Amino acid sequence: MVAVEFTSAFANPSGSPIRELFPYLSKPGLISFAGGYPSPSLFDVEGLMDAGRRVFDDPAAALQYGATEGMPALREALAQLSVVRGISCEPDQVLVTTGSQQAFDLLVRIFVEPGTPVYLETPAYPAAIQALRLAGAAIHESPVDADGLDVERLAQQLEEAAPADRPKLLYTVPSFSNPCGTLLPQSRREALVDLALRYGFFIVEDDPYGELSFDDAGVPPLYATGQNRAGEDNPVLYLSSLSKTVAPALRVGWLLAPPDVRRRCAIAKQTSDLCTAPVAQLMAAHYLNSGRYPANLGRTCAEYQRRMSAMVQALRDEAPDTLKFVEPRGGMFLWVEFEQKMDMSRLFQSAVENGVLYVPGAAFYPLGGRDQAMRLSYATPTVEQIQEGARRLGRALAGVAVPS
Amino acid sequence: MVAVEFTSAFANPSGSPIRELFPYLSKPGLISFAGGYPSPSLFDVEGLMDAGRRVFDDPAAALQYGATEGMPALREALAQLSVVRGISCEPDQVLVTTGSQQAFDLLVRIFVEPGTPVYLETPAYPAAIQALRLAGAAIHESPVDADGLDVERLAQQLEEAAPADRPKLLYTVPSFSNPCGTLLPQSRREALVDLALRYGFFIVEDDPYGELSFDDAGVPPLYATGQNRAGEDNPVLYLSSLSKTVAPALRVGWLLAPPDVRRRCAIAKQTSDLCTAPVAQLMAAHYLNSGRYPANLGRTCAEYQRRMSAMVQALRDEAPDTLKFVEPRGGMFLWVEFEQKMDMSRLFQSAVENGVLYVPGAAFYPLGGRDQAMRLSYATPTVEQIQEGARRLGRALAGVAVPS
Repeated sequence: MVAVEFTSAFANPSGSPIRELFPYLSKPGLISFAGGYPSPSLFDVEGLMDAGRRVFDDPAAALQYGATEGMPALREALAQLSVVRGISCEPDQVLVTTGSQQAFDLLVRIFVEPGTPVYLETPAYPAAIQALRLAGAAIHESPVDADGLDVERLAQQLEEAAPADRPKLLYTVPSFSNPCGTLLPQSRREALVDLALRYGFFIVEDDPYGELSFDDAGVPPLYATGQNRAGEDNPVLYLSSLSKTVAPALRVGWLLAPPDVRRRCAIAKQTSDLCTAPVAQLMAAHYLNSGRYPANLGRTCAEYQRRMSAMVQALRDEAPDTLKFVEPRGGMFLWVEFEQKMDMSRLFQSAVENGVLYVPGAAFYPLGGRDQAMRLSYATPTVEQIQEGARRLGRALAGVAVPS
Repeated sequence: MVAVEFTSAFANPSGSPIRELFPYLSKPGLISFAGGYPSPSLFDVEGLMDAGRRVFDDPAAALQYGATEGMPALREALAQLSVVRGISCEPDQVLVTTGSQQAFDLLVRIFVEPGTPVYLETPAYPAAIQALRLAGAAIHESPVDADGLDVERLAQQLEEAAPADRPKLLYTVPSFSNPCGTLLPQSRREALVDLALRYGFFIVEDDPYGELSFDDAGVPPLYATGQNRAGEDNPVLYLSSLSKTVAPALRVGWLLAPPDVRRRCAIAKQTSDLCTAPVAQLMAAHYLNSGRYPANLGRTCAEYQRRMSAMVQALRDEAPDTLKFVEPRGGMFLWVEFEQKMDMSRLFQSAVENGVLYVPGAAFYPLGGRDQAMRLSYATPTVEQIQEGARRLGRALAGVAVPS
């Protein structure tokens, strides 16, 4: 028998906490608020089929290896999209990645070794927690409030930290965050960029949801603030993705970063997968160039807003005086806390028995010790499912509060 | 200015030595024997266009996130293909990866930390060298001869090595290797598996070329030998890819490994890119299921054999008494050594001046100190280009031998 030995970082990997919910999804009639998937009913199938056909306009190029940095047509289309969002950007500044997950992974590879201090906006996106854990990062939690990252508390944290514990990276989702759905106000964005410049760390801005804004609530990416305040010394590294606004199955993301960082990420990407699938890159480029993106995005935002409103209303109807949440102004998620301490284990069991699923709050706290919350996604269920799911959640909540 | 600091492994990354040849490729009229790309003239464009249309048979599934392990249809098709190659395999044993490059990267992530001893068949595939270097592996060279990995010398190496220097992994391309084009005979395969069992290391079998065999020269993958000799204790980890036999642009590879290794690789893959692009996976599955693969593979093998024969003949005609090589029985590469010591720097300059490009041998030696060879690929150029390229190489070779 061959001895199977693994490196320490992977010795006891736990996998994704959300993935552990998969077995429950097969329960018949279950309504899931647990997913982080976009709604398949909003995919622009006709537009993507057209784009798929156009992939073969130049078959020799479409079927061969591509440059590690990305196909020129897609780099151009993504640069244009970045400009629409308020960023100043040229095509050769775009590094195409296999989803924004890979962009974060490449940054972790070049910046993080065991013990490297990384600050993480908390509650935090579980895949970011997992990537940092596997790399052995020394994770520090930076709390958020109803307006996203609490930059004043961060300033205090940085002030009080020993120099060796100050971060090399800070990870944040400033626009319609996962899991909280919050939008960081412009004044905090400016203060955050200034902190990064002062203490010499990079801000990793993960921006898959920024365009999913309701009522034109969106603000330009933090990256734009960084450009305005620091020019070429912009401390923001920008990650984005077409997964939430076009289709996850393309696995097309991109990274904007200073030339030196981008070059090192490209070298790491050679080792990771040589290049992102050119067939998927070209499908994405043809779709973005077709002119159909803005209309489908508008349709998506309107529908997500409708579903979010339905969820907020249904939760208020079904569980008054029990739940606390801030109505999101964009994105896919509602972060729900409780008026009373809950037995989270009983609540989860009771929810599953009642036929409704959510992601328990514990999944979003990298250092553990907190669990009094849940993440609900309104992106995938219909309004009718949302209402029925809220009724089930109301029933599940009855009687699981811990007596005070 | 933000201080840019990188982890040690990426402190001075050199990138791919083959990539450094790219600037020369723009020279007008240049004939390149340097690439590792398959011939675009052999892509089954019609079959892949059909497969591309079929991707949208079930748009909601085709455009959504997929399971990290791969789309069921593709896992089944790749299991069948593995069985055709002589492997015993079920669909749920297949981990789909973003090219076989990612499969190797995942293995490096779970097995290698700085200082981990890894044996590398040398001359070696440069991207494997790069991945191991970036991970900080302690690389040991295991030499090859005209029949591939010299397993007797390996046995001696292992015997003489201090226990701490014995490998955790050994990397080899046993079938039509890159760069040497050699095919490891069955007797060596058995001896190699026995060594892995005896010393407790995993053999990483990289098999992108095994099906590209001329005159039915192929033998089943080393993985099959491992299955036959050790059953569930098979010490071989199998990587393969559709890049050389269908199209690189799909970025579809796969890994066969024991359940524990596969599970850890799947967790690492979540962090890397969540899943391989479902649109590309489905295109690959529909193509493999269309029944067109065997005929196109046959056409590809016949054409590569024709080009290989043309190259061998042309080199014998144009540079008699100068070059040493073994005629490959499959694959894409010819490894050329010299009858006399060459000034490799002058040879490369002279070749470029004469309008022909190859990959200098130094790129294939992880520990340096050797350079008296070159890798020629016959896959992409036409027979006429091969003959003209050989004439140019003959002119370049004249007068660059080092006087003895």
